[in-house]
Amino acid sequence: MGLEKKKMKKLTIVKIGGNVVDDPQKLQTVLKQFTALNGPKILVHGGGKLASEISDQMGIVPKMTDGRRITDSDTLKIVQMVYAGLINTNIVAALQSLNCDAQGMNGADGNSILALKRPIDTVDFGFVGDVIKINPDYLKQLLAIGTVPVFCALTHDGNGQILNTNADTITAELGKGLSQDFEADIIYCFEKKGVLQNPDNDDSVISSITTTTYMKLKDKKIISDGMIPKIDNAFDSLTGGVKNVYIIRFDELEKINNAHKPGTQISL
Amino acid sequence: MGLEKKKMKKLTIVKIGGNVVDDPQKLQTVLKQFTALNGPKILVHGGGKLASEISDQMGIVPKMTDGRRITDSDTLKIVQMVYAGLINTNIVAALQSLNCDAQGMNGADGNSILALKRPIDTVDFGFVGDVIKINPDYLKQLLAIGTVPVFCALTHDGNGQILNTNADTITAELGKGLSQDFEADIIYCFEKKGVLQNPDNDDSVISSITTTTYMKLKDKKIISDGMIPKIDNAFDSLTGGVKNVYIIRFDELEKINNAHKPGTQISL
Repeated sequence: MGLEKKKMKKLTIVKIGGNVVDDPQKLQTVLKQFTALNGPKILVHGGGKLASEISDQMGIVPKMTDGRRITDSDTLKIVQMVYAGLINTNIVAALQSLNCDAQGMNGADGNSILALKRPIDTVDFGFVGDVIKINPDYLKQLLAIGTVPVFCALTHDGNGQILNTNADTITAELGKGLSQDFEADIIYCFEKKGVLQNPDNDDSVISSITTTTYMKLKDKKIISDGMIPKIDNAFDSLTGGVKNVYIIRFDELEKINNAHKPGTQISL
Repeated sequence: MGLEKKKMKKLTIVKIGGNVVDDPQKLQTVLKQFTALNGPKILVHGGGKLASEISDQMGIVPKMTDGRRITDSDTLKIVQMVYAGLINTNIVAALQSLNCDAQGMNGADGNSILALKRPIDTVDFGFVGDVIKINPDYLKQLLAIGTVPVFCALTHDGNGQILNTNADTITAELGKGLSQDFEADIIYCFEKKGVLQNPDNDDSVISSITTTTYMKLKDKKIISDGMIPKIDNAFDSLTGGVKNVYIIRFDELEKINNAHKPGTQISL
């Protein structure tokens, strides 16, 4: 009777953060290293500072409630223009110049990521989408023909509305949604060498974080602020079937298949 | 020995003009009728007035030389943001809501349309691309899995540069490039009922234009201005292997497979 474990193909999902996207040289470095990765792969990119710059230039004042950014209709327009129009197309063109056969995407393309506009509780976040499900069939078909999907941080609600969705979340959801069909690894690339013991010392990388050590690191305030949702996302994707999650510096992506891994590995 | 003529599958390429894109109701009408078309299909959309509006809002003055618009780097940014970021994503999301499985594209995606930055002769048009070749293999693969490519008017040069390319030209090149594999029809949808004898009378549609009648219509100045490049494009695509070309009103797309065709048919 024994259900044999299906030997699954490896899939690498790389997320590059806003600071890397903002810097043309860093971006070129990570795109080159991404191109060199073998096998099926997906790139997800953040937005960086460009959206704020364009917003300023258009005289649109970002709306905040309780210190949190609200995606009103003007802001949505800007993130669509910047994420999908400017950053995504430029990254795809750059990857094509490196002979990486990229296809720019957002969640509406091929109905790849369906989301729900976040319900109004105490705060109305506006056009922000929480992922409901990804469409693995379409992505599998693209990957099977050697296409490299490149996602910006936009989804859709299935009723014609584009929604703003966190790029780390999109990355985690893609990993989970494709983990039935692939042995999926997620690699978060940013400008630090990994999760650091001491934020001022780039050599203080914590090479491994587990659910147990995570609690202690949070208690000691070694991990705080922006890193918490990132690591929560990582655990969420591991629970959802993703094989390995790493947080590394963008220029160490080329070392990801070495015996000695760069950065921080997150494990359950 | 007789080479048998291969029975080819029909492909419908629909281009919707800027005036239709600008009007939410007209856009919804044409997208509904496009969705209802059977078989493999591709949508190409123009830009409309939105790029000028965003340009104004950002305080960018469009550059003109000899009355012709120049795509300098600021203008390129704006057309990328508006064509790919705003219009294309919204059209794809709208098509998905109609159960049409759209994938937004520009020429960099899947290296689908390679172009050459127009050489500087007397005028430097800036980041304008003349199409060199389309990549039929990728498009065939997308069409084979039931995906509906939706193109905005951008191409790339293969060296990482996005270029601005006329949407009618993209339409014609897609038709030509896919005519080895498909019996391709091109349908240009705009706000008039077809090519008119009298521009003020929407019932004066010229139902058929051939190379011979075209000369006469041009001599009599019945066809002039913006319609000339459109019809030149149509002849170019017919010479290049496209089966039929029609110029119709956007809301008559649903009649395109009737025995009595709407609008104007262009034939060699």
